[in-house]
Amino acid sequence: VRKGFIRKLNGIVGADHVSRHVEDLICYSYDGTPYRAHPEVVVHPGSTAEVAELLATAAEAGVKVVARGAGTGLSGGSVPLEGGMVLHLDRMNRLRRLDPLEMLAVVEPGMTNWDLRQAAEGQGLFYPPDPGSTKVCTLGGNVAENAGGPHGVKYGVTGDYVIGLEGVLASGMTFRTGGETRRNVTGYDLTSLLVGSEGTLAVITEITLKLLPKPPARLTALLAFEKPVDAGAAVTAISGRGIIPAALEIMDGITIDCVERYRPGHLPRDAAAVLLIEVDGEAESVRHELQRAVKAGEACGGRLVRSARTPEEAEELWESRRSISPALGRIAPTRIGEDISVPRTRVPEMLERIQKISIKHDLIIAVFGHAGDGNLHPNILTDARDPEKMGRTEAAINEIFAAALEMGGTLSGEHGIGKAKSRFMEGSLPAETLALMKGIKDVFDPGGILNPGKIFPSGGAGPG
Amino acid sequence: VRKGFIRKLNGIVGADHVSRHVEDLICYSYDGTPYRAHPEVVVHPGSTAEVAELLATAAEAGVKVVARGAGTGLSGGSVPLEGGMVLHLDRMNRLRRLDPLEMLAVVEPGMTNWDLRQAAEGQGLFYPPDPGSTKVCTLGGNVAENAGGPHGVKYGVTGDYVIGLEGVLASGMTFRTGGETRRNVTGYDLTSLLVGSEGTLAVITEITLKLLPKPPARLTALLAFEKPVDAGAAVTAISGRGIIPAALEIMDGITIDCVERYRPGHLPRDAAAVLLIEVDGEAESVRHELQRAVKAGEACGGRLVRSARTPEEAEELWESRRSISPALGRIAPTRIGEDISVPRTRVPEMLERIQKISIKHDLIIAVFGHAGDGNLHPNILTDARDPEKMGRTEAAINEIFAAALEMGGTLSGEHGIGKAKSRFMEGSLPAETLALMKGIKDVFDPGGILNPGKIFPSGGAGPG
Repeated sequence: VRKGFIRKLNGIVGADHVSRHVEDLICYSYDGTPYRAHPEVVVHPGSTAEVAELLATAAEAGVKVVARGAGTGLSGGSVPLEGGMVLHLDRMNRLRRLDPLEMLAVVEPGMTNWDLRQAAEGQGLFYPPDPGSTKVCTLGGNVAENAGGPHGVKYGVTGDYVIGLEGVLASGMTFRTGGETRRNVTGYDLTSLLVGSEGTLAVITEITLKLLPKPPARLTALLAFEKPVDAGAAVTAISGRGIIPAALEIMDGITIDCVERYRPGHLPRDAAAVLLIEVDGEAESVRHELQRAVKAGEACGGRLVRSARTPEEAEELWESRRSISPALGRIAPTRIGEDISVPRTRVPEMLERIQKISIKHDLIIAVFGHAGDGNLHPNILTDARDPEKMGRTEAAINEIFAAALEMGGTLSGEHGIGKAKSRFMEGSLPAETLALMKGIKDVFDPGGILNPGKIFPSGGAGPG
Repeated sequence: VRKGFIRKLNGIVGADHVSRHVEDLICYSYDGTPYRAHPEVVVHPGSTAEVAELLATAAEAGVKVVARGAGTGLSGGSVPLEGGMVLHLDRMNRLRRLDPLEMLAVVEPGMTNWDLRQAAEGQGLFYPPDPGSTKVCTLGGNVAENAGGPHGVKYGVTGDYVIGLEGVLASGMTFRTGGETRRNVTGYDLTSLLVGSEGTLAVITEITLKLLPKPPARLTALLAFEKPVDAGAAVTAISGRGIIPAALEIMDGITIDCVERYRPGHLPRDAAAVLLIEVDGEAESVRHELQRAVKAGEACGGRLVRSARTPEEAEELWESRRSISPALGRIAPTRIGEDISVPRTRVPEMLERIQKISIKHDLIIAVFGHAGDGNLHPNILTDARDPEKMGRTEAAINEIFAAALEMGGTLSGEHGIGKAKSRFMEGSLPAETLALMKGIKDVFDPGGILNPGKIFPSGGAGPG
């Protein structure tokens, strides 16, 4: 980028909010994947109007733009592969409105998921989507990736809560979709189209979210299994009894072991898998529902190892769940976290396939995820410095994807395509469907300014 | 259309499934609105492959195509305004799969909403979206319009259940979006984009729907109010206590009166409004939840007039609700049914505004709808043969829309835009948003073959 361009940026947001220092550029060069690429400049806008001016200026100069929240993404979505300008939305982090009677929140994209969840709870309300990175990830990033989390099995994912958006197109044009009503069929559902579009269609500057009443009661239990496949079978057995738990999480033995090294004393180290089951609802019914779920799990060989009697005990179990990512991150130099999704009755089969793939390629693959939704996260513990091992890693990933697609599954359940999976898009989607997506990209961003190199297959480098 | 074109159609589906008889063309000239327009030919395809061949043939000949289900739409969506070919999907009415463990159904577009709901119930499952026309309307039409129904307040609308689609583009190209997994973030969410696109983007040939376990218990009660505005206030009071009923329906005094003339003995004729409240869930909790909802309503001046003790008694109340449309249809020569949506706390204000508008223009306006969602159906009882009265009707509609938009509401909550509201789109959506929608239309249907004259504003005739 040229000096004149930087002067313009300074004029829009103030020089304090523009940086070209190399240490800043490094800070905005990564996400939760091994992808790395430096931007040429980082800008921190404070308002929608500033975002609009910045985008218009970038469009004029032909500078690429990547919007960014907390950088916790797991598909390379916020890595500025082609340099250009990173738009860090950290200053746009306000809760604009929390309306307990309408049960909705209007937020800026830089607000964290956790802060909204806490604010809602303070009003007796509940915002269910809770990615593992809830404490730091931003709602703008959640919308961009259509982030999920453990509560998806009963409550759905981010997109199920977004009813209105304000955004800015690559041209600098501000627009709105949806609104504050629960129902809206005024033309095409652009709101849902923008959710999960990974920053490739527009920069989101305001989000209107539905909230729910906080369930009055919540119970959590932990079941241990001697075989992962039995835990998978228990998932189907539970839903087969007409129970939709608030969360139904699986962790395999490798995951348990890593978490126990990181944060000991909460999980059964001798188990080959555990299911973390949460039920919520009216106080009169939750105990009964949990009992039925536990019985269904026991019928598949499960053993009840813990039933949280207090919210604090439940929080301990959830803290173990949330510490999977940091725990796995410590074990090996490189961790490749995958995110396949299969029909939920195929979870046992998928667990077996992953185990076979790990043996075949002599790799450690930890598996955990949102079993109730069929969304599994096989995490390959590997080493980016070792080309031979990375070759085996790559082969294993390809085989895992192939197995998921063969079972009617998908490449990504909640992390998005980003850079990490873009090269698999052609094998995963029919050519006609991909062509429609590209056509839509051209409508929103004809110059290809926004988040280049993401979602759509193109040549380019692998991770590293 | 030319003779050679008809011969081609006969070759694709068989001459038995192609008609140009005037009595057939009349049958496919209308929906639930006063709009009328004859197609030139009606074709009944039996498979996706036939739909694809028909569309390719139409594209080649430049013939417009309108897909049609049961014709119960309330925005003119299936009326073939520019003639051409009606694609009636009545033969594609099979349930292809009902999977109780995956809790999903794969259906053809011509299957009725009711048949799916019954089939699901037979397996202990629940498909919540239930438009008033549930017994005849088709799932393809439900997807095209993103149809709602009374259970939306707790369970959402059609789009909340669609996880996969097969469709055919105007070019004759078959494509798929989504799939059978609960989670899928593989590129843009084309599935949600197609839901509610009113047949303007593609012809839907297969639908994959999520199902829920059937709630074990369900209770229904009827509260009467002396003022409609009090019933509106009760809606907010109920949600303010953290209760999300399975349904929360309002009917005003005019609606009650019409329904009682049509099907006497179920509603309190002296009431100025009633709220029909349904709660569902575990047997242990529903009674308590209903009591709390009733108390909240009573605190706003409501009087409990009926609490259904059996499923049959509840069904009687629901049958009254479902008979609103036929009941109102008998009262006046022409009924214009509107479909505004407002934030739910604005329901009392909206009820008052509609009352003032009805007095100002000396019109009878019956109001009912999904109050819990803020989705109201003001129905103007008028006479299309009387130009002076239609002038007042038009003025009243404009004022109702203006009031809804002023309150942060929308033109349509669940009926779609179709022809009936297309002329209001420019006033209702920002120009940039409308331009994006038009761009998407051009990606899917560059020749403007599919359902011309719908959604987007264009000149053209009014109803009648």
